[in-house]
Amino acid sequence: MGIYQYINEKVLGNAGGDLEEVQIFPTYRMKVKKNEVVTRFGQIEDKAYFLISGIMESAIEKDGELKIISFTFPNNFVCSYTSFLLQTPSEIQSKAITDCEIEYFFKEDLEQAYKTSIVANQFGRYVIEQLFISKLKRENDFLTKTAKEAYQDLIKERPEIVQEIPLNKIAKYLGIQPESLSRIRAEIS
Amino acid sequence: MGIYQYINEKVLGNAGGDLEEVQIFPTYRMKVKKNEVVTRFGQIEDKAYFLISGIMESAIEKDGELKIISFTFPNNFVCSYTSFLLQTPSEIQSKAITDCEIEYFFKEDLEQAYKTSIVANQFGRYVIEQLFISKLKRENDFLTKTAKEAYQDLIKERPEIVQEIPLNKIAKYLGIQPESLSRIRAEIS
Repeated sequence: MGIYQYINEKVLGNAGGDLEEVQIFPTYRMKVKKNEVVTRFGQIEDKAYFLISGIMESAIEKDGELKIISFTFPNNFVCSYTSFLLQTPSEIQSKAITDCEIEYFFKEDLEQAYKTSIVANQFGRYVIEQLFISKLKRENDFLTKTAKEAYQDLIKERPEIVQEIPLNKIAKYLGIQPESLSRIRAEIS
Repeated sequence: MGIYQYINEKVLGNAGGDLEEVQIFPTYRMKVKKNEVVTRFGQIEDKAYFLISGIMESAIEKDGELKIISFTFPNNFVCSYTSFLLQTPSEIQSKAITDCEIEYFFKEDLEQAYKTSIVANQFGRYVIEQLFISKLKRENDFLTKTAKEAYQDLIKERPEIVQEIPLNKIAKYLGIQPESLSRIRAEIS
């Protein structure tokens, strides 16, 4: 799926719709290799990325240590949003965990489209709503679930996570030590 | 400030603009007393609330214990967003900490406006962007700051918090015990 198809299907609920009508801004494609950084710490982000294939991680840094705040799977957007929206230095690093194919667009083109296109605004609103909901869910999980419960839910919702993401990264995402995750996995199996 | 004024000033950046042009959906007003619950756990939320005066809290529940996830101050929106957006039972309780004056609107009217009005879509997008940014900031704070640093930043950004919100609620918001907060306050002063 590409961005225009995403707009048709997800935003407008119109899977068979005419792709020409949703070309509200130009998009570009790129390929990144495993472990390649897409957005650096401190960079002012001027692009938003849509993952066509592969897996990416977003992380923040504390005392030289990375803390993973999200994994992104195909057909979802990934971006250092605060930097993108406010044009402040990015506190987030986005990196490819596997080889990835990415479609992206520029903030400038999006802002231009916002001025005249209802579809562009519906698109921007829909994407941010989805992200906000998943962020609220993660906050809720952190506050109400044990690490074991959070891990069990994660592998139920995203079974591919255990196959494709190294355990030390999953531990970083859950906010626990790799040894704790190994113990949890031993308890479950 | 009311919702239409908020749209003019914050969303459109047009403080002196004509209020008639931003009346994109009907709004209503209500007053709630201190400690009154605006959104109950389990309720399907069909309204979004704009705080004209007073302070509100949003909390989730774990094993019968409330955990405060946000305080809302005047000129901001407060809502059980996941419930509002997805029409699922609310996992959040919104409550007035002081007497409050509130302006609100219905999801149904908003959805109607989204279909034809660019301003409505810009409004929905702007509100959710602001909320998303503050949620990302809170996640970042949780992962990178000590409780003491988080408290110091909080009173710097929102000095009124210490005057108007009971300490046990601030502790719940920071995710620490009231005794730990008392110790932090003693260290600082």
